[in-house]
Amino acid sequence: MIRRFDYGAPLKTDALVKDVPLSADALPYFTVTETDGGVCFTHALGKDDLIFGLGETVRGINKRGHLYRSWNTDEFSHLESKESLYASHNLLIFSGQGSPFGVFFDDPGEVVFDLGYTDANTAAITSVNGNVSVILIEEDELNAIVRAFRSLIGQSYLPPKWAFGYIQSRWGYAADSEVRAIVREHRDRHIPLDGVCLDIDYMVDYKDFSWNRESFPDLKKLSKDMKEDHIRLIPIIDAGVKEQSGYDVCDEGVANGYFCTYEDGSPFVGAVWPGRSYFPDFFRPEVRRWFGDKYHALLDQGIEGFWNDMNEPALFYSENGLKAAHEELNRLLTTNIGLDAFFHLKDVVLGMANNRDDYRSFYHQHHGKRMRHDKVHNLYGAYMTQAAAEGLRSYDPDKRFLLFSRASYVGAHRHGGVWQGDNSSWWSHILLNLKMLPSLNMCGFLYTGADLGGFSSNTTEDLLLRWLQLGAFTPLMRNHSALHTRDQEIYRFGMQEDMRNILTVRYALLPYLYSEFMKCALTQESMFRPLAFDYPADQTALRVEDQIMLGKECMIAPVYQQNARGRYVYLPEDMLLVRFRSAADYDLLPMEQGHHWIDLQLNEMPLFIRKGCIIPLSRGGEWVEAVDFTDLTLLGWLDGAASYELYDDDGTTTQPVLADGLNAILCGVKDGRAFADGKGLTVDASRVIVNG
Amino acid sequence: MIRRFDYGAPLKTDALVKDVPLSADALPYFTVTETDGGVCFTHALGKDDLIFGLGETVRGINKRGHLYRSWNTDEFSHLESKESLYASHNLLIFSGQGSPFGVFFDDPGEVVFDLGYTDANTAAITSVNGNVSVILIEEDELNAIVRAFRSLIGQSYLPPKWAFGYIQSRWGYAADSEVRAIVREHRDRHIPLDGVCLDIDYMVDYKDFSWNRESFPDLKKLSKDMKEDHIRLIPIIDAGVKEQSGYDVCDEGVANGYFCTYEDGSPFVGAVWPGRSYFPDFFRPEVRRWFGDKYHALLDQGIEGFWNDMNEPALFYSENGLKAAHEELNRLLTTNIGLDAFFHLKDVVLGMANNRDDYRSFYHQHHGKRMRHDKVHNLYGAYMTQAAAEGLRSYDPDKRFLLFSRASYVGAHRHGGVWQGDNSSWWSHILLNLKMLPSLNMCGFLYTGADLGGFSSNTTEDLLLRWLQLGAFTPLMRNHSALHTRDQEIYRFGMQEDMRNILTVRYALLPYLYSEFMKCALTQESMFRPLAFDYPADQTALRVEDQIMLGKECMIAPVYQQNARGRYVYLPEDMLLVRFRSAADYDLLPMEQGHHWIDLQLNEMPLFIRKGCIIPLSRGGEWVEAVDFTDLTLLGWLDGAASYELYDDDGTTTQPVLADGLNAILCGVKDGRAFADGKGLTVDASRVIVNG
Repeated sequence: MIRRFDYGAPLKTDALVKDVPLSADALPYFTVTETDGGVCFTHALGKDDLIFGLGETVRGINKRGHLYRSWNTDEFSHLESKESLYASHNLLIFSGQGSPFGVFFDDPGEVVFDLGYTDANTAAITSVNGNVSVILIEEDELNAIVRAFRSLIGQSYLPPKWAFGYIQSRWGYAADSEVRAIVREHRDRHIPLDGVCLDIDYMVDYKDFSWNRESFPDLKKLSKDMKEDHIRLIPIIDAGVKEQSGYDVCDEGVANGYFCTYEDGSPFVGAVWPGRSYFPDFFRPEVRRWFGDKYHALLDQGIEGFWNDMNEPALFYSENGLKAAHEELNRLLTTNIGLDAFFHLKDVVLGMANNRDDYRSFYHQHHGKRMRHDKVHNLYGAYMTQAAAEGLRSYDPDKRFLLFSRASYVGAHRHGGVWQGDNSSWWSHILLNLKMLPSLNMCGFLYTGADLGGFSSNTTEDLLLRWLQLGAFTPLMRNHSALHTRDQEIYRFGMQEDMRNILTVRYALLPYLYSEFMKCALTQESMFRPLAFDYPADQTALRVEDQIMLGKECMIAPVYQQNARGRYVYLPEDMLLVRFRSAADYDLLPMEQGHHWIDLQLNEMPLFIRKGCIIPLSRGGEWVEAVDFTDLTLLGWLDGAASYELYDDDGTTTQPVLADGLNAILCGVKDGRAFADGKGLTVDASRVIVNG
Repeated sequence: MIRRFDYGAPLKTDALVKDVPLSADALPYFTVTETDGGVCFTHALGKDDLIFGLGETVRGINKRGHLYRSWNTDEFSHLESKESLYASHNLLIFSGQGSPFGVFFDDPGEVVFDLGYTDANTAAITSVNGNVSVILIEEDELNAIVRAFRSLIGQSYLPPKWAFGYIQSRWGYAADSEVRAIVREHRDRHIPLDGVCLDIDYMVDYKDFSWNRESFPDLKKLSKDMKEDHIRLIPIIDAGVKEQSGYDVCDEGVANGYFCTYEDGSPFVGAVWPGRSYFPDFFRPEVRRWFGDKYHALLDQGIEGFWNDMNEPALFYSENGLKAAHEELNRLLTTNIGLDAFFHLKDVVLGMANNRDDYRSFYHQHHGKRMRHDKVHNLYGAYMTQAAAEGLRSYDPDKRFLLFSRASYVGAHRHGGVWQGDNSSWWSHILLNLKMLPSLNMCGFLYTGADLGGFSSNTTEDLLLRWLQLGAFTPLMRNHSALHTRDQEIYRFGMQEDMRNILTVRYALLPYLYSEFMKCALTQESMFRPLAFDYPADQTALRVEDQIMLGKECMIAPVYQQNARGRYVYLPEDMLLVRFRSAADYDLLPMEQGHHWIDLQLNEMPLFIRKGCIIPLSRGGEWVEAVDFTDLTLLGWLDGAASYELYDDDGTTTQPVLADGLNAILCGVKDGRAFADGKGLTVDASRVIVNG
């Protein structure tokens, strides 16, 4: 049952694609109280209750025990004590003694989730502005709640097939020759690769939709050459538009009044990478149309994918903020500075970025009404993603393009994916990467992944290696790192052969990963799920935080600790361990339900297949198009009939298509014996069937 | 075999108490190369080699795979990517295919430990100044290397018995009445307590050896009243001395030339809590004597313990640094600031603290020679600790006082303990706390512990609870938190009864913890050891990073993950699990060697006793002196004869004394049956013996 409960004057967010009728009932489960300008929903927690949801956040899959704040933030340090990252995914799912229930707080302003933080036994959710639509979803099991929610919010974005390939990225790639060299290093070593991201350095003065004609003298030719080598370029687009007369985007935006404004109607100025910048008011359809169409300039160069950044929106400082800081610093510096003044000076300087005063100083047009930014802050990135998606669609409505964003709100999942933001080269972030996956999936974001190897700080080769062993399963598989950090491309490291082998596993698994992605998108399922969702009666599975279900058939449990040579794994049922050293070299080990220690050397990565299931493994390839989805080995631990249905298509059609004409052998364990043959196998167009 | 190899002109550090003859051999294991002004020692690592040591640092017990920098730093954020904390403990122990070996780089300047970071298979240690004494220790097993090293560096500091009690601390306790109230809250609830720390707020303007006569009108009476309630006050002393005419410490220091100086001989000025401050030149015996004797003023008030802080030395900024920043900021602010200028402005402001230029701008007298600070930086805190220890000894040579420090170098372990610095209320820091323990012990620091519940950030009650379950085993057991964070005293929380129960376990274990501490101090053993040290042939034990050995008989393995209801534990041999809910309520579960999942509810903490060993458990008490060390229950899983020797004394004698007259019953498991009786037990003065 799905019911809506409104408080204050809820704002339209476009999160939902279906109308939920307003309930005449009192909101169950929660006590509702007014706070200073807001409204607070409190729910008493049983001692062992669990809470899921919140999409892109720090800490556990079970969110209980911390305070989270939906306030999209350019946060460069994903510490466990942080309250906000780049996204606001206001879905909670409570699981306790009785039936579970889900609740979505549809409010584009600040929402605070105190989930057993202030009081261990109370969840208190506060809409700071008090204008919120509460969507209550009651189903008898956790996955059904997700399905119901996902049906409400609409089908997830579908990336092209090539976007499931390995992507190399780095803040700093600045020239045609550099891109070609990077690609060559991969190809020469047979390290699979399908894309190279261009970070802000490809632009002229960080101007959106520009590219540096000196360092990229012929972008169209570069794109074409790359595509012939099965590589796509993926340029970045930032939210802020450089204030510069003569720059078309700036001039048009100013002339047409497309930018966010101060209260007096003049355009708001904030500083981001280009320096003083304007911010398109993506809330307005005509601005989205205008900005979205700007992507065509790059599409005309042969580009087929983009990433949108800085769209929380990040603000290094505002014009007004800088002026105030300037005055304060001048005041502080006129006297012999004391300790208090020194700390105040630090606060002044550090407080300029992403300052709340700035977010209260500019305005949007939101469904025809002027709206102060902070009331709708968390929608900004989502509407930018929508603008880009609409621009791509207007360029070619019959083609899937790659698009992913840093900031998001529920609803943006229909238009693009998200990466997990500017993480660090920390071992703890492998686990954070893993934990975000099922939470993001619940909120509709299926195309996602983290910066493998870590964005900030210096990576080490074992960290990158172990991280790739997780990234091999995430739809977005991108190695990305920050300027001034250690070079992080696979070929820089002594263990490159082991890393290459991980990519062979990735590419061999593409038929499975692609099929599962499409099935989940089309049927509102999660590709990654907490064990708790599939085994709700298993008290141990409920609290597993370092393993997740992948697709209908699998479970993943990567190593995420330095110097480890294995890890503990809990099997909620009998499973077949596939211990991969490469796509061509792996062990098949049937393992019984229960706790296990698994030996995993640096070059070994595990995948667990549920007993009775089969998954397809291809022969792989060095780019996605080279992977033959119809020439398969089936892996499984069989105890009867089994089948697997496969998606395969041209990779860009907007309507994913089932495979046509498969060829498979079976490789697995049955009756305690390993085998590899085609016996007992029926193959139809899109389905392989193992007879019982 | 122990050999010394000198490079450059090694400086005297007082780390060693014995002379190691200079070897005529070439240094084995390492290739030695000159670097720019320094010397680098490289060692090829086998694929599976492990590296232990480095005392107080981030990351694993096995230090392989990161870069560490010995440069004592006031580091408020203990991220895994940090290179330096507050201490320099330059001991490495390499364990690989052949015999293990230890190597101590005795150099008080900057030393860089690149342990398979730049190249996964190379350890490269660089003495930046090139003046280093390399002490090589070759023994046939890991614990023997530690014993040999510890014999070289001398007996560890012995704290008084009461210092093993629970200590409550918080930055912000500011008045007599507040201290009394805190103690009362504990006593009223029967939460055991032995000490209250006074952080900087007890002073007048943060002046060392002062106390605020308004908020503490009669410190002597407060001390006396507290002591009658079995509570000790433990005031903080900072390294910097406020520059203030009329303040005796300042005036005497200036008059006698006791402070560190600029190159021109005038006293160096840096800003710390008191604002502009001078820094005693603790390198000189006469300065240590003068400063140490200053502690007498507080001892006269009945104080029996101190903590030394800010002695890296921390510098918020220097007089010169502020002037330079001031000029730079003025310059930046005269023009319309651009993006580069803005980031530069941030760098200028943030770069003022702990600036390397400042550390190069002042001088010590080191063994009669003028020495620029940066050459001997890492000794500053150690010599401050020595000053305090000497002052305490000159006050009463026959009494043990409590003394612990933030900064340290090997050698300081003879004079005081260390706490693990300004950690955060992060779950990951429970594990960091655990990992530091064996590493600190190797370097002689036996009296240690972390800020339980976490210093910075806000704690949650489950975090404090789980952290206390580890802290129950650490010699220093202190709950400490920062100003402006959530109140963190046990009685603030709903789960206070569970927390109290943890303290009952701590106090019941005091006879064991105290005896093991004294044995380890007197015989140069480690109280906490990696499993690798006790089970070097066990390939699984070698890499265990979240369990450590405690004393001769035990292993600890606390829960360190939020929302967990248990954890995996590897038993390197058969052990008895004692699952404590309180000192009076526990399960005894014999468990076989191997991997186990252990259920541990929030109120349950595990202790593992090696099969065949017994440990004493007292009836506990609400303060240390109330614990009867002679009235014991012996816990164990018996398969033959066993015995335990106990230390017990007045708690302050400088020569620890064995117990005299014990009374015990035996409670354990034998032949698969639990029992509790006194049968088969022989008790002599200090030893309980179970007949086989």
